Amino acid sequence: MSDLTLDTARTIIRAAFEKGQQMGLNPLSVAVLDAGGHLLAFERQDGASPGRFGIAQGKAYGAVMLGMGGKAQMARAEQQAYFMAAMNGVFGGQVVPVPGGVLLRDDAGRIIGAVGVTGDASDNDEAAALAGISQTGLIAEP
Amino acid sequence: MSDLTLDTARTIIRAAFEKGQQMGLNPLSVAVLDAGGHLLAFERQDGASPGRFGIAQGKAYGAVMLGMGGKAQMARAEQQAYFMAAMNGVFGGQVVPVPGGVLLRDDAGRIIGAVGVTGDASDNDEAAALAGISQTGLIAEP
Amino acid sequence: MSDLTLDTARTIIRAAFEKGQQMGLNPLSVAVLDAGGHLLAFERQDGASPGRFGIAQGKAYGAVMLGMGGKAQMARAEQQAYFMAAMNGVFGGQVVPVPGGVLLRDDAGRIIGAVGVTGDASDNDEAAALAGISQTGLIAEP
Amino acid sequence: MSDLTLDTARTIIRAAFEKGQQMGLNPLSVAVLDAGGHLLAFERQDGASPGRFGIAQGKAYGAVMLGMGGKAQMARAEQQAYFMAAMNGVFGGQVVPVPGGVLLRDDAGRIIGAVGVTGDASDNDEAAALAGISQTGLIAEP
Repeated sequence: MSDLTLDTARTIIRAAFEKGQQMGLNPLSVAVLDAGGHLLAFERQDGASPGRFGIAQGKAYGAVMLGMGGKAQMARAEQQAYFMAAMNGVFGGQVVPVPGGVLLRDDAGRIIGAVGVTGDASDNDEAAALAGISQTGLIAEP
Repeated sequence: MSDLTLDTARTIIRAAFEKGQQMGLNPLSVAVLDAGGHLLAFERQDGASPGRFGIAQGKAYGAVMLGMGGKAQMARAEQQAYFMAAMNGVFGGQVVPVPGGVLLRDDAGRIIGAVGVTGDASDNDEAAALAGISQTGLIAEP
Repeated sequence: MSDLTLDTARTIIRAAFEKGQQMGLNPLSVAVLDAGGHLLAFERQDGASPGRFGIAQGKAYGAVMLGMGGKAQMARAEQQAYFMAAMNGVFGGQVVPVPGGVLLRDDAGRIIGAVGVTGDASDNDEAAALAGISQTGLIAEP
Repeated sequence: MSDLTLDTARTIIRAAFEKGQQMGLNPLSVAVLDAGGHLLAFERQDGASPGRFGIAQGKAYGAVMLGMGGKAQMARAEQQAYFMAAMNGVFGGQVVPVPGGVLLRDDAGRIIGAVGVTGDASDNDEAAALAGISQTGLIAEP
């Protein structure tokens, strides 16, 4: 179903955690989803709050389902809050429209999954996600 | 319950896709629901994001359930966002109050179903829906 | 995300309907899902009951999520009913473990989606699904 | 709430995958939950069906929530299927009462989390879970 491999997902998670450490961020949680929005890998760093999976997954899931990264979703939410509220209804409450959800595209431009990072300020979460993706050959779309 | 036939639904979908192509729109997804809000036909063009069914269905479902097209729902949402949020609670998260959801009426004015189009900007989605419906004898109410 | 195209989905639906007509079956409904379990196309023949989308989708969705066709799921359900009940919990009530849900594999053996047919006896639904798939180059796994 | 660390979770996952490879099993998916039933880590091997997260999580979640491993849950389900069905209602469909869900206890006997493995026959899933846990100082309760 997906060209995204577990090895690639692990690379993203580890590199996102390294970035978080370099930046001195709070403990992070990272979810990597395939092109169908299904979980491939997730890790939550020690000390993070227990609900972090839902948030990380929601950032990535909304990105895949809507074909739109978290930063783009936030712009839409700022402009038309009821639309993003409706999207949450459609997708069972699993859309978290803030930075930290990043689409993954292959070099042909095809969406092959998404990453969701949570734990610090949204912009920092996004920086960690982008650092993670930069260690793969994939294109990140925030 | 419904006089809307599968042949009519197919005509609407094909004509909506043709309009999208003429206008150079993103890949579209079109749902056609009967007078009870139940799915009669759906097609998603190649390249659309995987969550498009839920959005197309939600545009059409809200239209049928509320007896109000997507443009009218948006006006209400702009004015009274909490009302549309409450509608989403009542209808299980399946109301998407933006253009692209269009009611279908027969020549006696009776609602016989709805069309939901998604994939591009909401106004373009609506233009495709209206083009689709124009190929049938039905009256469109956006 | 998927190599399954809308054109292929249409071919499957039309050929399943033709088979139903040849066999003198009740009106059929056919859902075609991609490799992530997301709806690509659906059609419900005139005269079918309004809830047929949920059943067709559930047959195909369970097949994709579990990597197991409907006939194989039914064998498991006969043997261990509480397991299939649990699967329904996990997948939000969207698993219908009877014949008529058929996995689609490409010639490399990779699952690229599933078909769900409903409307007649389960074995007849499956026959229609298989006839539909036989018009494509894909491998059917019931 | 939990003494279970991400490092321990990683050890369990890797050792479970190694066991699966030694035994020639299908691709596996492994979820590790903390003492509150919240996801700490998850990995799905390439080639597994997309719905494996829900199943792995359900095996581990039911174990934590009920304080009972999957093998013990299955015994109860065989004896009193409606009880496990009721548990599924209570816990939102997230209880999968078959082997492969294993409780984790520390040396004081306190439950500190659970592991859920899925992908092969339930007994093989359990063998992989136990092999994973054997690489830590924790006590496994199937």
